[in-house]
Amino acid sequence: MRTRKKAIVLLSGGMDSATTAAIACKQGYDVHALSFSYGQRQHVELERARLVASALGISDHRVQNIDLRLFGGSALTSDIPVPKERSENEIGNGIPVTYVPARNTVFLSFALAFAESIAAFDLFIGVNAVDYSGYPDCRPEYIEAFERMANLATAAGVEGKGTFTIHTPLIALTKAEIVKKGMELGVDYANTLSCYDPVNGKACGRCDACQLRLKGFREAGVSDPAPYAA
Amino acid sequence: MRTRKKAIVLLSGGMDSATTAAIACKQGYDVHALSFSYGQRQHVELERARLVASALGISDHRVQNIDLRLFGGSALTSDIPVPKERSENEIGNGIPVTYVPARNTVFLSFALAFAESIAAFDLFIGVNAVDYSGYPDCRPEYIEAFERMANLATAAGVEGKGTFTIHTPLIALTKAEIVKKGMELGVDYANTLSCYDPVNGKACGRCDACQLRLKGFREAGVSDPAPYAA
Repeated sequence: MRTRKKAIVLLSGGMDSATTAAIACKQGYDVHALSFSYGQRQHVELERARLVASALGISDHRVQNIDLRLFGGSALTSDIPVPKERSENEIGNGIPVTYVPARNTVFLSFALAFAESIAAFDLFIGVNAVDYSGYPDCRPEYIEAFERMANLATAAGVEGKGTFTIHTPLIALTKAEIVKKGMELGVDYANTLSCYDPVNGKACGRCDACQLRLKGFREAGVSDPAPYAA
Repeated sequence: MRTRKKAIVLLSGGMDSATTAAIACKQGYDVHALSFSYGQRQHVELERARLVASALGISDHRVQNIDLRLFGGSALTSDIPVPKERSENEIGNGIPVTYVPARNTVFLSFALAFAESIAAFDLFIGVNAVDYSGYPDCRPEYIEAFERMANLATAAGVEGKGTFTIHTPLIALTKAEIVKKGMELGVDYANTLSCYDPVNGKACGRCDACQLRLKGFREAGVSDPAPYAA
């Protein structure tokens, strides 16, 4: 029997990373999941990430503790209020206060370390550049630059053992297309939480992430099975 | 009075990062230092980093806790023995077991997050590609790829607030030239520890890092003021 190729999937507990993990599993990869405990206010995210991994049969799920609060500067890691009920135009315009400096770079760097240590060469991240919040580290040109750097950074890359690929299966999809894709793959979105500011473990329904998610379900003609606070 | 430009310096407590920090200070930067507690066996390194920062008058010195042991695979983070008394030829040949997967990428990613949060655009790292241990993430082509990625990763880069530069003032120097440079700048090398496997806080004198360091001092015609175990 041929051994399945290993892949690392960054798993946050949100709908995008859950869909990404389901896609990697469907493609036949032996998926190893990586989550972060990073002083985010919504660490209920981590519980959801565990549920998602478990539902997909991913047995190797590691959690890296880091402290992005050490650097401050984001509504997701400090006391800056999360904006609520912004219009579609506002959401699409500029980089919001929920941006965490260099977050995807830090996450992908750890994914790279994990990958190299288990001889995996495929990294999956659920970034999306269509219905997204304007984060610079979700764009294709950023992902390509990271991939190039990764192949120069590592012993595995330099010794020619393989070439690292950063897979971004959602990057060109709308939120509605992501929902449809996930439903096809049997993702249980009730397990996922995309909210920037959950209330007692439930999504607020009003932050940018909730609004983009709800719009996606609406446009896909599916009702969101996740619990909402309001 | 014009405000000094801020810079982030990665500070390990070794001779290279101490020299790099002294160079950044000498160039007039307002230096902010970043160290890591990463489950390394020699966490005495961190105490040395504090001494080095203090001697240079660096008041902002942050320590990020991470756990590279989560991924295993290196003599610096696991129980793999550190090689001792290898010949010059052996040291220069191939990637050694002390290589930590993607370590400089993880370190530079946090430096980037730190930089963006305080509006700094200059990052200093004491990598060296001459008398070095064969780590892929010490080479100029890697540093250039990281720099390019950094400018695509960040709000500051995208919004045109500035351009991130990764400074590697030691990259083309021999260890002897690094020693001479540091002596000129008044670096107290007694504070520094470059050893991969210290014994009671003292350098072992026998690992690759100690051998490269001792050779550097010898060739510079200076005696190494740091204490050695043997």
